[in-house]
Order: sequence, then structure tokens, then C-alpha cells
Amino acid sequence: MADKMDEKKVTPRSQDFAAWYNDLIIRAELADYSPVRGCIVFRPDGFAIWENLRDELDRRIRQTGARNAYFPLFIPQSFLKKEAEHVEGFAPEVAVVTHGGGKQLEEPLIVRPTSETIINHMFAQWIHSYRDLPLMINQWCNVVRWEMRTRPFLRTAEFLWQEGHTAHATRQEAEHETLLMLEVYRSFVEDFLAIPLIAGRKSAAERFPGAEQTYTIESLMPDGRALQCGTSHYLGQNFAKAFDIRFLDENNELQHPHQTSWGVSTRLLGAIVMSHGDDQGLRLPPSVASTQVVIVPIWRKAGETAKVLSVARDLAGKLTDAGLRVKNDEREGVTPGFKFNDWEMRGVPLRLEIGPRDVAAGEVVAARRDIPGPPGKSKVQLAEIVTSVRAMLGQIQANLYRQAKAQVDSNTRQFDDYAQLRAQMEDEGGGGFAELYWCGNARCETRIREETRATCRAIPLNQSPDQNGRCIVCREPAAERAFFAKAY
Amino acid sequence: MADKMDEKKVTPRSQDFAAWYNDLIIRAELADYSPVRGCIVFRPDGFAIWENLRDELDRRIRQTGARNAYFPLFIPQSFLKKEAEHVEGFAPEVAVVTHGGGKQLEEPLIVRPTSETIINHMFAQWIHSYRDLPLMINQWCNVVRWEMRTRPFLRTAEFLWQEGHTAHATRQEAEHETLLMLEVYRSFVEDFLAIPLIAGRKSAAERFPGAEQTYTIESLMPDGRALQCGTSHYLGQNFAKAFDIRFLDENNELQHPHQTSWGVSTRLLGAIVMSHGDDQGLRLPPSVASTQVVIVPIWRKAGETAKVLSVARDLAGKLTDAGLRVKNDEREGVTPGFKFNDWEMRGVPLRLEIGPRDVAAGEVVAARRDIPGPPGKSKVQLAEIVTSVRAMLGQIQANLYRQAKAQVDSNTRQFDDYAQLRAQMEDEGGGGFAELYWCGNARCETRIREETRATCRAIPLNQSPDQNGRCIVCREPAAERAFFAKAY
Repeated sequence: MADKMDEKKVTPRSQDFAAWYNDLIIRAELADYSPVRGCIVFRPDGFAIWENLRDELDRRIRQTGARNAYFPLFIPQSFLKKEAEHVEGFAPEVAVVTHGGGKQLEEPLIVRPTSETIINHMFAQWIHSYRDLPLMINQWCNVVRWEMRTRPFLRTAEFLWQEGHTAHATRQEAEHETLLMLEVYRSFVEDFLAIPLIAGRKSAAERFPGAEQTYTIESLMPDGRALQCGTSHYLGQNFAKAFDIRFLDENNELQHPHQTSWGVSTRLLGAIVMSHGDDQGLRLPPSVASTQVVIVPIWRKAGETAKVLSVARDLAGKLTDAGLRVKNDEREGVTPGFKFNDWEMRGVPLRLEIGPRDVAAGEVVAARRDIPGPPGKSKVQLAEIVTSVRAMLGQIQANLYRQAKAQVDSNTRQFDDYAQLRAQMEDEGGGGFAELYWCGNARCETRIREETRATCRAIPLNQSPDQNGRCIVCREPAAERAFFAKAY
Repeated sequence: MADKMDEKKVTPRSQDFAAWYNDLIIRAELADYSPVRGCIVFRPDGFAIWENLRDELDRRIRQTGARNAYFPLFIPQSFLKKEAEHVEGFAPEVAVVTHGGGKQLEEPLIVRPTSETIINHMFAQWIHSYRDLPLMINQWCNVVRWEMRTRPFLRTAEFLWQEGHTAHATRQEAEHETLLMLEVYRSFVEDFLAIPLIAGRKSAAERFPGAEQTYTIESLMPDGRALQCGTSHYLGQNFAKAFDIRFLDENNELQHPHQTSWGVSTRLLGAIVMSHGDDQGLRLPPSVASTQVVIVPIWRKAGETAKVLSVARDLAGKLTDAGLRVKNDEREGVTPGFKFNDWEMRGVPLRLEIGPRDVAAGEVVAARRDIPGPPGKSKVQLAEIVTSVRAMLGQIQANLYRQAKAQVDSNTRQFDDYAQLRAQMEDEGGGGFAELYWCGNARCETRIREETRATCRAIPLNQSPDQNGRCIVCREPAAERAFFAKAY
């Protein structure tokens, strides 16, 4: 086993970021390639991260008043066509079921790429009066988009996500919901996944097909490329009109409701791997790690084994009882050093080493995954182990965010000169976040995209505008700064 | 609103069981029909039951050592053909994707009807040595089977389920796993869903396509029809051979592992509705009810309102803090009687009524959903409310099981005479469980099925065989008794 593992080395991140990412996902057994084009298998260690993430986000979504439901996987092809922009955006990438039960279907069914159409068809049956509003539904499910280029987690033909769909009596309420969910996502990704973000709105060109306004949380990966981590859309009355959703308001007049939709996906797993990983492998935030603490019992002479193992098991029990996710690595036939490397590669936040001398002294050695080498090691009294471990996990979570934030900040630059922006974006890899004044005109945005491959990632919500701002391209007055970057 | 509800009366169960079932699901807002043939929408009140059920079963499955993972929705058509019986069983009912991203696919993809094929394809990559065994994977997902006749929850084109897939070094271990999971299902459905079961093995004719042995949990619905609630299969080495899964055993020899698969689905929601519901509506076991306790504050004069509402809210807070799922119904414009009926229809196990006199006396009236009328009502001291409510919910759970068990028992008959069996099965509806000696010969089983429409539901695991048992059809010696019934 040890031999087999040694064969499959992970490419160092510093050497080739893309190869490192792909190697690491396979080697840490987060996912595997499948025989179906563009689809991956989520292996238990990877799926457990998704489950931890999902359970916490689900709790936060429920707190806003939304309730979970489940709608059909299939959507009649005609539904997609009811909203003009929506069909234009999604028709090119749908998978189509043409046969069922051995017969050709009268109307082909598409496999949902997103569920606005079928959910709003049902909303039209359920919404009659202002008393039925707000209607706030969330769905955890699989969706399919036939993407040309796929990468594990980041872009796959099938992926898992949640999609929220709400209907409100007024524009104001719906706009408030859109921004509320953006904030739910922002705080969740920053606090729980330790990934620093910019929250803002999208330019018209980058909007969700059918939305009046799209808001986004964007992060910057260590290779200098931006990753969209979640979006929240204000849909206006577009889908309500297309699907004939109407309600009697308090004055007994028929109105179309104002709507929102919002989602995050398994792409977040890719964000975690890239934002926190290093040359040694994964580094998982304690909040989502399937194993938060690994115990490695160490013995040399046969006589020491029983005592060390007994203390290690006792320790594992105590930490598990305290609600922590713990593994006790009693594997034989591999060295402690091998185990250290293995668990570091798998990203376990905290390792507790326990040998005969530690047992005698009533302590263990704790090694933090976020601080390499001796500075990350400390002795912890067994008597205070639960308190100490909890405190250290909290510090690791905070430190992973700090490190990721420093990385993003060091790769975020303000540009006022278009030639300098082009120079920055010239290399093959990323180029970081470019913060710049943009007039808002699509022509300038297109020119930046075509000449630098950077797109408008977000126009931040909180601006402190400079009265003298001028568009980096056309030099016309510009009221807002925007973040541009090459993106995944 | 009251008027609208009154319009949609539920057909009494005693009058038309099938109509009652369909009406109730719509009226209690558990599910709705969708625009996609044979697919339903799980509305929040129905999906919450599934979520409660799923979370508890997931916990029990994990305790056996299985871990969750996720495999692709799509399966290459050629995979299905690798196991001869499997393709014969599933090919007629698959949905086929022929186009993706605007192009015809080189090889069509089927939407998974079950995942043995793709999971075992992956197992072949992951299993190399006896050290990789047992491999125990569980998946919660959607599956699609193009059924001709569909009914909400019981048989739908798309449904939700969990499917476990395991590989073991020996036949003995795999057989043990098959029976262990059957027992996990049995205790879960009996204890948590309060549905009485017969656990046994299937006849050869009723086996899962590709299995060597299929075990089942079967219940009997109040209309006298059996419902299969879950199955656990011993697959032998059939799929291991078809997908070339091999491992080096401890003697360094290549072996095929022995495998199992097992699953339960959203069909269980139908079992809950049918087993427990009555003319007044749903009756949900407290374990899975999305609302376990509803509080109905009652006031007549304006001066009473504030005090009653304040005590009701305080009560709701106290019960919620104790971990119970509580609703406080403060709706205005509908009478208390209307609210009582509404929550009875929705199956809430316990109702707490609180009026000005109750407030003054420091008590509430508790009304149990499982015992109609005055006998189900009692006064509960507010000071002891948490303890009392917990105890009553426990009693309701136990009583729902007892009532369902009495129903099944009263509809279970032993038959020794074939003419009597035929007479019993003659009416249009069910016919109950028929317990009888059967020689095990397929010819006799076919004759029963063709002449009575009853099929072999289960051959119970624990038999106390009569040496003189004779097959009800051919009168040849028969070693085992079997349960036959008309089935959903």
C-alpha cells in the first residue's frame, strides 16, 4: 500500500497549478473521473465535505424562511422557450431525453439545467392571493449543463447544487430578498469555508439569462484567476409574466409577483481545494473537514503498544463525545512519518501524536496543518485536551482565512492605465483582480475582454466613489469601480 | 381562504380508498401533479417528512460502516448490457438521453434506474487487494423508471431513494451484510415509521434482476393490498464478473468479491399516508411529522387576546427549545373549529388548545390525533408541559403502530384450501395477506398469480415448519410457508 501511494505523487502547486489541482483531487480521494463525459464521481472523502457544507448552508437558508421541496428532473422542452433570454442562455447546453420506456416521446424532455421554468409553472398553480406570498422554496438537487470543457468540481456536466426560488408581492421585497441571500452566501463562504470574497453585482453582459439584476460572490484563486462562488438574481416579473403567475393584491387587483432565484454548487469544493491547498496537499477548514483531528499513536517496542493504543483510543472517544470528527490511525506496516504525510495530504486540520513518553507525561504533541514544521507543533496536556483542541481548530479556521485573504490581497491591483492592465493580463496564467473605473458601457467591457481575456467579475456593493473617476478604456466619467479578472 | 378549503373535501377513506389517498396527498399539500408524465412535485410539507425519515435512516446506515458518495446520473447504454438479467429487467423502462449540447451523442446515455452498473465499474478501479474490502457505499439520489401506471409516492417515473452497494471478500460476509441491512430497514420502518412488516425472502420470480437472492420488507395497506417497503439483495459474484472486479486475497490469489445492494425510496411516504390516515385526513407518526405539536390559542373578547397569545407564544418557545417541532396557529379570520379540522387533516400528532380559562388555571387541553373525540382529550399542567408532551408523543407513536398492526393482523389469514384462497382474492380491492404452504415450484406460483392476481410477497425468515405442510396448489410436501397478496 505504501509503495502504491508513493507512486502517485502530487505535482507541486508551485510547479503547475492546474496539474496540482487535478492530481490532488484524485490522490486525496475527493473525486474520480467517470466513464460519462464531463461527469465525476464524488468519493466519500469529497462527498463528506459537501455534506458538511450543505447541512450548514441548509440551516442558514431555513432561517430566512425558505422551505425545501423537490421538483421533477425533467422539463418539457417547450417550457424553456417561454422566457426569451432564458432559452437563449440555456438551450445550447441542455441534455435531451427523446425516448422513454422503449418509445419516442411526443415532446422531448430536457434534463434541468436550472429549474426556474418548472418551478414557476407550479408557482402559477399555488399563488392566488397576496396571502400566498412570499412563497420561498429551496431545492437541493442535481442539474446538467453540457459544457465543452470540464474540470472536477469547477465545471462538470452534472453537478449538485441548491437553487432557491421566491415570489414576493412587491419589487422592494424581492430586491431585499436578493441582497439578503447574497449576504447569507457571503457570510457562509467567508466564515464557514474561510474563503475571502468580493460581493457585488454583475454587468449586464454577465447576468443570468432572464434576470433583471445578478449579484455575485467572487473569490480569487492563488493562480490569479477569479472563481464565481454563488449568485443571487432579481428576476423582476419576467418569469411571472412568462408563466402567468398572478395574485389578487390587498386592493383586489391582479398583479404579477416579483421574483428571485439564487444558488451555490459543488463548485465550492473546487474553491476550498484551490484557496487553501499547498505543496503538501489539501488543507481543509475544520468546519467542513470530514476528519478534523487525526490521532497517530507511536510505539517502537512491543511492550509499549498496549499502553499507547489504550490512551489513543481513550482520547479518540473523548474527542468524539465532545462532538468532534476524529480518526485514530492504528494502521500497522506503515511508519509514523508515512502517516503524517498521508494525513497532511488529505488536509486534516490537526494531528495529535502520542508516544510512550507522551503517555508518561500525560500529554500529546499537536501539529497544526496550517503552520508547517516545528512552529506548528505544541504540547497539549491530556487533562485539557477537549478545550485545547477546540481552541486550536478555531485558530486554524481563522488562520486559513487570513492566509487566503493575504493571498487575494497580494494579487489585487488598482489600475488607472489601460496599457498597464493589458501588460498585467498578458501572461498565460491568471493576472489577479484588477480594480478599475469602468463607465458601464458594454463597448468598453467588450474591448477589455477581447484584448485581455479579463471579464467584469463584480461591481462591489459598497463603493466610496471618487468624483473624478474616469473609465480606464474611454476616459469618460465613471461613477463606479469594478473588479475585472480572468475567470474559471 | 376558509371557503376555498371547504370546497376541496377529501373523499372518505371508507368510501373509496384510492380516491381518498389521491385527495389527501393534494389536500394536505404533501405533493402535487407535475406537467411531466408520471413525475410529482414534493411540496414542503411532504418533503419535510422525507427529510426527517432520510436523516434518521442515514444515521443508521452510517452506523453499519457504509459511507455516502455520489455517482453520475447518466450511464452509458452499453453498461446496462453487461449483466444479462439486469438489462432484461431494466431496459424496457429506461429514459434515454440522445442529444447533448445541441449534438447527437455517439453513445446514448440512460438515466439511472438503479446504479449497480456504474458503481461497479468504479469499484473495479478501486478494489485491488483484500485490504480494500469491505467497500461499503451508500448514495441518496433520484432515479428514473418509465412506468406505465403511476401513483403519487407509490410508483412515479422519477423517485428519490438511497441505494447501498457493498463488496466483500467472502460469500458469508456478503450474505451477512444483506441480512443486516434487511434488519436495519425492518427496525427503522417498524420503530420510526410505525408500520408493521413481514420480513422475508422473495421467490425466484420476484428477485431483483441480477441478484442471487432478494430479501424484502412487506406491509399490508388497509385496503388489503401489500406494499413492498424496501429490499436487500445478495448479488453473488454476478456484477463482479460482469465488471471485472477482482482482488488479491491473503494468499495472493485473484478473486471476485461477493456483493450486495439495498434500497428504500420515497414510496415510504405512500406507506405512511396509507397505513395511518383516516377519514379526517393524515395521521403522522411524531418521529417524521414536520409539525409534531400545534398550538391553537382561543379567545372570544378582545380583552382576552393579549394574555392568551402571550401564553401561547411562551409555550411554543418552551417546546421548541426542548427540541420539538411546534407551530403556533395565530391565524385570524378562521374559527378554532376550522383550525382543528385543518391540522387534523394535515396529520399533526398533538394539538394544544389554550383559552382564557386555561390560562387562568395554568393548563392547556391536549388533543391526540390518534384517538378521536373526547377520549383523546386531556388537561395538562403548563408547569409540566415539556414532560407531558414528550410522553404523549411517545404514546401516539406506539399507538399508531398498534393500530396499524391490528389492521394488518385482522387482514391476514391462513389458507390450506386453494378454492378458499381464490374466493378470498376475488373481490375488486385487496384481499389481505394469505399465509400458505407453497412447494417453491414456479408453476404453482404462476397459477396462483394468474388465477387470483396474488403474488408471492415474502417467505418469512423465521419459520416454525410443520412436517406435514403441503403446497396449497399441488399438495406436494412443502417445507415453508409464504405470504401471498395482491400488491401495489
